[in-house]
Amino acid sequence: MTARKPARNRRSAEQMLVELKDRLREISDLIAAGDVLNWDQATYMPEGGASARGRQLAMLYRLAHERAVAPAIGTLIDALTRYGDSLPYDSDDASLIRVARRKYQKKIKIPADHVARATAHSSASYDAWTRARPANDFATMVPYLERTLDLSREYSSYFAPYRQIADPHIDDADEGMTTASVRKLFSELKHQLVPMVRVICEQPAADDSSLRQTFAKAAQFDFARSVAESLGYDLKRGRLDLTHHPFCTRFSAGDVRITTRVSENDLGDALFSTLHEAGHAIYEQGVSTALDGTPLGQGVSAGVHESQSRLWENVVARSRDFWEHFYPRLQRIFAEQLSSVPLAVFHRAVNKVARSLIRTDADEVTYNLHIMLRFDLEIKLLEGELRVKDLPEAWRAAMQAHLGIAPFDDRNGCLQDAHWYSSYIGGQFQSYTIGNILSAQFYAAALKAHPDIPHEIASGEFGTLHTWLRENLYRHGCKFVPNDLVEGATGATMNMQPYLDYLHEKYGALYRLPASTSDGGRGTV
Amino acid sequence: MTARKPARNRRSAEQMLVELKDRLREISDLIAAGDVLNWDQATYMPEGGASARGRQLAMLYRLAHERAVAPAIGTLIDALTRYGDSLPYDSDDASLIRVARRKYQKKIKIPADHVARATAHSSASYDAWTRARPANDFATMVPYLERTLDLSREYSSYFAPYRQIADPHIDDADEGMTTASVRKLFSELKHQLVPMVRVICEQPAADDSSLRQTFAKAAQFDFARSVAESLGYDLKRGRLDLTHHPFCTRFSAGDVRITTRVSENDLGDALFSTLHEAGHAIYEQGVSTALDGTPLGQGVSAGVHESQSRLWENVVARSRDFWEHFYPRLQRIFAEQLSSVPLAVFHRAVNKVARSLIRTDADEVTYNLHIMLRFDLEIKLLEGELRVKDLPEAWRAAMQAHLGIAPFDDRNGCLQDAHWYSSYIGGQFQSYTIGNILSAQFYAAALKAHPDIPHEIASGEFGTLHTWLRENLYRHGCKFVPNDLVEGATGATMNMQPYLDYLHEKYGALYRLPASTSDGGRGTV
Repeated sequence: MTARKPARNRRSAEQMLVELKDRLREISDLIAAGDVLNWDQATYMPEGGASARGRQLAMLYRLAHERAVAPAIGTLIDALTRYGDSLPYDSDDASLIRVARRKYQKKIKIPADHVARATAHSSASYDAWTRARPANDFATMVPYLERTLDLSREYSSYFAPYRQIADPHIDDADEGMTTASVRKLFSELKHQLVPMVRVICEQPAADDSSLRQTFAKAAQFDFARSVAESLGYDLKRGRLDLTHHPFCTRFSAGDVRITTRVSENDLGDALFSTLHEAGHAIYEQGVSTALDGTPLGQGVSAGVHESQSRLWENVVARSRDFWEHFYPRLQRIFAEQLSSVPLAVFHRAVNKVARSLIRTDADEVTYNLHIMLRFDLEIKLLEGELRVKDLPEAWRAAMQAHLGIAPFDDRNGCLQDAHWYSSYIGGQFQSYTIGNILSAQFYAAALKAHPDIPHEIASGEFGTLHTWLRENLYRHGCKFVPNDLVEGATGATMNMQPYLDYLHEKYGALYRLPASTSDGGRGTV
Repeated sequence: MTARKPARNRRSAEQMLVELKDRLREISDLIAAGDVLNWDQATYMPEGGASARGRQLAMLYRLAHERAVAPAIGTLIDALTRYGDSLPYDSDDASLIRVARRKYQKKIKIPADHVARATAHSSASYDAWTRARPANDFATMVPYLERTLDLSREYSSYFAPYRQIADPHIDDADEGMTTASVRKLFSELKHQLVPMVRVICEQPAADDSSLRQTFAKAAQFDFARSVAESLGYDLKRGRLDLTHHPFCTRFSAGDVRITTRVSENDLGDALFSTLHEAGHAIYEQGVSTALDGTPLGQGVSAGVHESQSRLWENVVARSRDFWEHFYPRLQRIFAEQLSSVPLAVFHRAVNKVARSLIRTDADEVTYNLHIMLRFDLEIKLLEGELRVKDLPEAWRAAMQAHLGIAPFDDRNGCLQDAHWYSSYIGGQFQSYTIGNILSAQFYAAALKAHPDIPHEIASGEFGTLHTWLRENLYRHGCKFVPNDLVEGATGATMNMQPYLDYLHEKYGALYRLPASTSDGGRGTV
């Protein structure tokens, strides 16, 4: 009897695990089906399809949500907790039970009626914003933003107690981070960046006129796709299509797609948009296929995800080594436009630093300042320190303080990003800067293990870097929380030193810079 | 009291109707979502996506099926039957209740385990066939076909009593038709066609070498799309993409897509494949938008659907009038290839009649003979009159008897079509010939109402024909059973006379033909 009992329990746990996986796979597949419909809507759907498509998408995501909060899932997870604890922490099954529990416990805290109200409000607000932004009409958006703030605070209340009201939102995007930890990180980074931007912008601006000629769209598209493929984006398990707003979407381990846009008069737009999305996709394609169809089978937090789009787009594809290899190819494709533009001029053009009003047009150095001011403002709004009606003026003041320029109108100011007008306020922006910081930290760790990586890049080889990232980061999917993942891969918690070193080295070669004053501002992601 | 009671009942019926429509819309949307995933798989999906896609599709269709046979639907339908009977027969709501009841009662007769076994067997059989056909290996398929026959008979048994075992299968595709009614129709048609084919094939073959030159694929694709649009296919509510096997698929009233293939050395392939699918799509786009998201919101039986693909592809787009308008345009596009080919030669080429082994390559006249022999053989197989192992020989004998040629191997014989290897045996083929017959009957009725239609076609105008078809056929979706629909639109039950008249008139102008001996072979669809 005693000999058989554990065996019987074990069998039963395994059966329950099979049932849990079946249920989770159905949820994952419903979301994937919705994502296919979304991709189609953004790429090929005829305009007549819009209204039925909205209904079909809402139905799929509703079915997925109903299943995700089903009490039967909770029962299975509870019954499997002890079994999970008996397995090695980093095993797939222990991780699955652990992560599924965390996600389930979060989801069931949010009442269904809140989800319905928040979804309906987001749609209405986004719809109003699409008209208000071009009309420069902030006044219309005030009541929407006030309601968004109420809903954002209501959302936080489901996760009480918390230290600060934005914490639940930040944790959703970047698990393990808080208002306080982001603030500490940003304060140190700002201390370094503001003087760097000032010094650079006092020097003559880089000449990027070479990028502003006329370039045939099809040739741009083909070049961007072939570079993405060279970096390691597998087109047998993905594809590149055109859209208004580039994105990356995953339907399964074998089908991770990206989209881009092409501008005839801006050579950088299609290329770097494509490589940014390819970075996200290379991450998703690198997740262990054993995790496919489970909650572990995708990249972890927004910040870590962004680190990979930034690593491939900026650290790799805006490097001098990279262009040593690819610029001659690009010159052959656009001989008329580029044959008389030297590599050094082209490299400086794709790394031009300038004060600008629009976040999405900002360069690598000033970008973080755009993020920080948004982060400050959304915390102040959420905490009631700033009133919605005072947002435009606060925006202008912060732009002046951070970047030394300010917009004349709201369309180029606080109306420019969709985020606050289509989702919650709180936790919407910090991931971009966390991504920048981590991109350098991951790259530095890869370089430490394989110092030859820059030489490989200069020969158009990315295999060593790609393999290191896959082994140390990608394959784990979201088995581990971001802090553990970063520490496991780089041997250190998230810290700014590699990023500051990267900026100083790179922009020190392009501009005269002040000496670094940082101690690295250690923090946790 | 007495004054309020009917009002209360009525309110309650209306509430139930809303609930029924909500449930039916969810089923329709789940199927539409699956259809989007299918379309994507056939057009753009990277090869790596296949295995997860299969799982995702199976899940969506399973959820749709579970909902379609839910007892709650039956309860609602039962409770609404009297209410439906109190409404005008042709009202949308009466039709919805009537059609939903008929579909529900059919579906619940089929046990879930049969569906599971039949689906699994179909997949395995189709997979085996994709290898067996190129290998000319009929022996491998024998046990598969025997199991398919068992499953096909089992399916029929759920609908007992029936007159003949194929009847439930035929009724699924072409409601209201039976083995006996199809046989009667086909026997009369064969009596007319066999001598017509013999006489035509004794004359010199049409010269279609003009179609076999080299034609740039992109220009072919663009021409086919623009002709489809001229016919009335609305690209704001549809689109044309490339696939291996052309098809038409509907996601909603505002999104009905078609696909085609392009062959560089066959000018007819892309064009007529596209116009065939455009015919299906024009029908679907013409269904009243009020029926969208309900079981009424799509074209009716397979035969009526095929009548519209045939009407636009053959009756319209292979007519002399049609090419009076479009041939000069085509000559401008392919000047090098066609400028010295006279219209009469080109028109004869696209209407070339020849004995051939492959159904999908067959011309308009011989096509029906291919269908009839398949219909005869599948009835014989199902009734046990023909053994599976004797099928190849029976095929050769029937080809010889019907068409005067016979294949040397099975890959060009009984292995050529996917139907029996991927679905049931029984009711798989008759719809094609019913479609041909009805295409002429609908066209003749439109012509009777608007004798100017041929002149309009000769000026590239299709509005009068399109409007007549929409008003008399398309807008009704599947509110009415095929027989009623045909009679309502044409003033007569299905009959062959218009089709025989059409063939005699058209091919009499191209070849010397014997005089017609038919009395029209009246029958019901």
